[in-house]
Amino acid sequence: MAGNNFGEVFRVTTWGESHGPAVGAVIDGAIPGIEISAADIQKELDRRRPGQNTVSTPREESDTVEILSGVFEGKTTGTPISLLIRNSDQHPADYDKLRDTPRPGHADFGYTEKYGIRDHRGGGRSSGRETAGRVAAGAVAKKILTEFGIDVVCHVTKIGSVWADTNVLSQLSFDEIKENIEKNPVRCADLNAAALMEKEVEEAKAAGDSVGGIVEGLIRGVPAGLGEPVFDKLDADLAKAIMSIGAVKGFEIGDGFAAAEFTGSVFNDAFEIKDGKIQTTTNHAGGILGGISTGNVIRFRAAIKPTPSVSISQKTVNSAEMKETEISISGRHDPVIAPRFVPVGEATAAIVVLDHLMRNQALHLSIQK
Amino acid sequence: MAGNNFGEVFRVTTWGESHGPAVGAVIDGAIPGIEISAADIQKELDRRRPGQNTVSTPREESDTVEILSGVFEGKTTGTPISLLIRNSDQHPADYDKLRDTPRPGHADFGYTEKYGIRDHRGGGRSSGRETAGRVAAGAVAKKILTEFGIDVVCHVTKIGSVWADTNVLSQLSFDEIKENIEKNPVRCADLNAAALMEKEVEEAKAAGDSVGGIVEGLIRGVPAGLGEPVFDKLDADLAKAIMSIGAVKGFEIGDGFAAAEFTGSVFNDAFEIKDGKIQTTTNHAGGILGGISTGNVIRFRAAIKPTPSVSISQKTVNSAEMKETEISISGRHDPVIAPRFVPVGEATAAIVVLDHLMRNQALHLSIQK
Amino acid sequence: MAGNNFGEVFRVTTWGESHGPAVGAVIDGAIPGIEISAADIQKELDRRRPGQNTVSTPREESDTVEILSGVFEGKTTGTPISLLIRNSDQHPADYDKLRDTPRPGHADFGYTEKYGIRDHRGGGRSSGRETAGRVAAGAVAKKILTEFGIDVVCHVTKIGSVWADTNVLSQLSFDEIKENIEKNPVRCADLNAAALMEKEVEEAKAAGDSVGGIVEGLIRGVPAGLGEPVFDKLDADLAKAIMSIGAVKGFEIGDGFAAAEFTGSVFNDAFEIKDGKIQTTTNHAGGILGGISTGNVIRFRAAIKPTPSVSISQKTVNSAEMKETEISISGRHDPVIAPRFVPVGEATAAIVVLDHLMRNQALHLSIQK
Amino acid sequence: MAGNNFGEVFRVTTWGESHGPAVGAVIDGAIPGIEISAADIQKELDRRRPGQNTVSTPREESDTVEILSGVFEGKTTGTPISLLIRNSDQHPADYDKLRDTPRPGHADFGYTEKYGIRDHRGGGRSSGRETAGRVAAGAVAKKILTEFGIDVVCHVTKIGSVWADTNVLSQLSFDEIKENIEKNPVRCADLNAAALMEKEVEEAKAAGDSVGGIVEGLIRGVPAGLGEPVFDKLDADLAKAIMSIGAVKGFEIGDGFAAAEFTGSVFNDAFEIKDGKIQTTTNHAGGILGGISTGNVIRFRAAIKPTPSVSISQKTVNSAEMKETEISISGRHDPVIAPRFVPVGEATAAIVVLDHLMRNQALHLSIQK
Repeated sequence: MAGNNFGEVFRVTTWGESHGPAVGAVIDGAIPGIEISAADIQKELDRRRPGQNTVSTPREESDTVEILSGVFEGKTTGTPISLLIRNSDQHPADYDKLRDTPRPGHADFGYTEKYGIRDHRGGGRSSGRETAGRVAAGAVAKKILTEFGIDVVCHVTKIGSVWADTNVLSQLSFDEIKENIEKNPVRCADLNAAALMEKEVEEAKAAGDSVGGIVEGLIRGVPAGLGEPVFDKLDADLAKAIMSIGAVKGFEIGDGFAAAEFTGSVFNDAFEIKDGKIQTTTNHAGGILGGISTGNVIRFRAAIKPTPSVSISQKTVNSAEMKETEISISGRHDPVIAPRFVPVGEATAAIVVLDHLMRNQALHLSIQK
Repeated sequence: MAGNNFGEVFRVTTWGESHGPAVGAVIDGAIPGIEISAADIQKELDRRRPGQNTVSTPREESDTVEILSGVFEGKTTGTPISLLIRNSDQHPADYDKLRDTPRPGHADFGYTEKYGIRDHRGGGRSSGRETAGRVAAGAVAKKILTEFGIDVVCHVTKIGSVWADTNVLSQLSFDEIKENIEKNPVRCADLNAAALMEKEVEEAKAAGDSVGGIVEGLIRGVPAGLGEPVFDKLDADLAKAIMSIGAVKGFEIGDGFAAAEFTGSVFNDAFEIKDGKIQTTTNHAGGILGGISTGNVIRFRAAIKPTPSVSISQKTVNSAEMKETEISISGRHDPVIAPRFVPVGEATAAIVVLDHLMRNQALHLSIQK
Repeated sequence: MAGNNFGEVFRVTTWGESHGPAVGAVIDGAIPGIEISAADIQKELDRRRPGQNTVSTPREESDTVEILSGVFEGKTTGTPISLLIRNSDQHPADYDKLRDTPRPGHADFGYTEKYGIRDHRGGGRSSGRETAGRVAAGAVAKKILTEFGIDVVCHVTKIGSVWADTNVLSQLSFDEIKENIEKNPVRCADLNAAALMEKEVEEAKAAGDSVGGIVEGLIRGVPAGLGEPVFDKLDADLAKAIMSIGAVKGFEIGDGFAAAEFTGSVFNDAFEIKDGKIQTTTNHAGGILGGISTGNVIRFRAAIKPTPSVSISQKTVNSAEMKETEISISGRHDPVIAPRFVPVGEATAAIVVLDHLMRNQALHLSIQK
Repeated sequence: MAGNNFGEVFRVTTWGESHGPAVGAVIDGAIPGIEISAADIQKELDRRRPGQNTVSTPREESDTVEILSGVFEGKTTGTPISLLIRNSDQHPADYDKLRDTPRPGHADFGYTEKYGIRDHRGGGRSSGRETAGRVAAGAVAKKILTEFGIDVVCHVTKIGSVWADTNVLSQLSFDEIKENIEKNPVRCADLNAAALMEKEVEEAKAAGDSVGGIVEGLIRGVPAGLGEPVFDKLDADLAKAIMSIGAVKGFEIGDGFAAAEFTGSVFNDAFEIKDGKIQTTTNHAGGILGGISTGNVIRFRAAIKPTPSVSISQKTVNSAEMKETEISISGRHDPVIAPRFVPVGEATAAIVVLDHLMRNQALHLSIQK
């Protein structure tokens, strides 16, 4: 009922505060017999780690994962997989002034209202550090999905005022997008746009400010038939999962908000027979119709707000003294969140798809002899 | 695990096919002692009912609700509330040709792939008729919310190429929006835009086509502190619930996708003290920060695709004969979905908010003496 | 969070009060493509129905089930199955005096304390009538289980002071037990004991009193591997489900409480190889080890208290006037519950087993091509 | 869907194998603002720890708990509490011969059938070591319950053929029972019976065998109104929770199986008014009627089988070679489980009661201003 677990069959529970001893995740419901190693998880944690370039914070988070249970002789056993990541770079003294001063754009105010108490050090539970547990668990989901031929990629399509060129993107294969995003710090598959985005981020940073962005996710290999109408539609569960990531303000599937401008005769994806299979000629729907996957590539987008921590002075209040004040957040903060969203969005989407794959399986009952 | 229930504490299960004997809902977890009558529910079902004007289908659905349990001497008892709505206007013969012919833009193909069997009459479970159960249950949620001073309204802000004027909307109070949407068939609070929208719908209808739209939802009176991070954030649960409504392709909270263009120093809502309370000077966030309500009005938007049923001929396949064919859907269908989304979106959002109000209450434990 | 649904994959929600318009159940998660008819369900409702002989109440409950959704052309479609049973024999006036007078041994007092309001007519939601919905849903589970070679039977092994003879029982096959219990009103498979039990019930009835009993359940055909440690062990879920049936005060698996007197070397079931398969030589464990089925027959027992409604005068209170009083419950009540438990216990156990069969299936993932 | 979490509002997930790096638990839904320290948890872990006397195994388990999250400045924050207990006494080589040889009375066979893979070292996930996580989480529940005046105790009432004297027990107060069980290794509150029990255990141990037992649980201070009919009755949830503890084969509430021998007029607990409150004159029901607490002391019993690990040789099979063999389990094993069940049963019952206290609270909605 509290909200720290996610998934019905492949169920992930995350825990941990940014400045406590550790963060982590427990996976209940991993398919047994799948090869998994700490290295498989570490690879994704390393992609998530900040401090790697000029567009992300120079914080040092070594983020070494330890597998505490559920894996035996290199394989999942079907029992819970517990993943532990110690926090290493703690400067709690930096945060003392935040005890009674909610930062604009952050969760501070809501946490105090809700719980009556708040670990104010660096956002505590609401810190982006939460995503380390999610990425670790998602790495396991990604590994399992590859066994079934399913793959996920996220890439940045907009930062500030700069859009990736849709013509350029439409020329790129799924694998080329995966490669390109590792070639630049903003994780944009259009390399020309990437350079412009990088420049826009650096300008915002220099001004003590931050910028927002948009990220697109693509999932290939999902078989037709996943999704549980009428409430747990595949796109509804993806929407919830993606919106649960900090800083996300919007979600679209397929053509999304642009669908409002279409007429039905143009928006509908016609069916055809190709290579002996029924498929659609276009994919305005984004791979999901009526909440159920169609076998097409699933395509979604997330709107990501600018980093709320800015060094420009902002108006806020001191809640203990009940008086107005100002705050300038001087710490080491990313001037843009979108590029760091990439591994988090992939991990999150992977968990949703694997969970629905297993949920669907329950309907296809057979007795193992 | 199948997906026909929704909510954790105020838990709604809906059931029923468009051309079966009935549709309905069961609510498990209604607060006891609240006055509720069939008339309270009927009022919302009547708002949902089609055939009321030129922009919606002339189907006759009387949609009379019967309360079968959980209400005693006019009050909820805390036991399950079962709501029954008989289907009256069934013409199953109309649908025989759809048995093996998936309609473009509809869920038909996915249902067959998923379940291996499909009630093909009028969309069966995937029909918009499903929303009758949801609206009935939501009417109970709305009634309970009014006891706590919480109210929800949805209004159409775009149809086809016509936008409601944001300057006009910003002059309207919450109550004026509620009033205005009942004055025109497209349920747009900007009455001038409404006339233009109506015209655009009629043109599409005349062309045998359909149009999409955007709807905004406003929720007032929500106390600060609702939402269950990190996965069941209030906006994440709203996103899922709204995306679970047929035809919705996108969801935004607050400024949504426009947030991508802001800088942090502008997007952040500053805190101030007003009338002795902490509040924000602006509401770019849409009333939710870090997944927890702030006490501000909650503001979200849904993108709604054009009605997939169009009489213009479309390419599809006959799955039994595995050959390509064409289909023209000649029945009585709405040329636009957005106005009919209004009561459904309100009902759905009301269930989410009530559910979170009760979830949050569990944390504030006291022993009744 | 309220407790009217049961099962994780094959999820049953029941609703309805004894003297409201109807009772019913919704099944979410039925396997698609299974043949099911109203007659399949009616058969079990008829076994449940009272008024059939001298040991049960002469109430007239016609209990005709109507399938409102989820079945198309005689087969399940995978969408929710809604089952409706109208209440016919309502005499609410009989119950007026119970408004403020909790009956000893009944749930009346607790409901008022919990909800602050109570439908006092005939027990309302806490009436044994609740089991009609459960039996209807269980009939669907039983039908599906037969497709997988699984069958459930319950039989009375004790009423008052009379035990069924364990030597007699040990001679009977599973099918003979199923046949024998239909031959006598107390549903005891030992026909000699049955006659003595019947006599004991009639004596209690003549004295205005009631008697308790014990029922054993047997489930055959369950494959090894069902159960979800460490909390959702198969026997733990059976215990909960059986304990949720009104009047049940105890649950045992295998040798149960007698296990306390054994030594480990005797209690352990040795493994052997027979017909090329690993099995156990004995079945002290009752078919479940470590919470997981072993492939053996599952054997459990339920302790059932005497009917609380007795015409002998009992001390109670008037809660409105806060003074002590007496009550004599003169209505039409069963003098023993155990025989009527039989179809309810079978239905309940069937739901648990089917649910675990489907839960286990989710682990055995394969992609349908 | 996998079964490693428990509770709906106060939700506990446990993880870990006996011979992996660690075991632990995550609590999601702890009430914020409650003082809790590692010492509070350590106290219960120490009560659970083996090797303390002649009736339990001399294994060295230091079992030091580390709180990794959810507690800030000594108080719960409402975010997940992660508890870690490193495993220290690992002798995996001892267990190599168990890889293909299922131990009679253990879960080995079922795990292999279910998952197709098994951590065979010392029972892996099915080891009694699992209960360390459960006891740690339960210690938090116990601490919170004391804030609301609720307390739980378990005590051994039978070992082998020796019963505690019911007359002696009936003279003891709740607090005296708590004290007495700490005075003897079998945790029996009747000190004379305790001596006889201890002797019986030592005789079994000397013979290379083991004995079973019965434990009673008492919960005081539970307010009337807890429990969620019709499926999540308080006694049904207690039954499931207690049955989920390894080695438990039966559960009773109140008079349990003895209820079968009563007549209704004797078994029913009459209501009376005492000190201005409605209460019952007797407590045959065990504090729960119709699945809802009555305000009386809750009283349950668990049947516990003899330890399956015995050094006496037993028949089993080698599953790799598919041939019959014998096994003698020579390790350090408790000759009786019942005394060690005591802290585990208390922890488990505490979680159930706290969870239901919070579930019930959700119904009593008020808006915090």
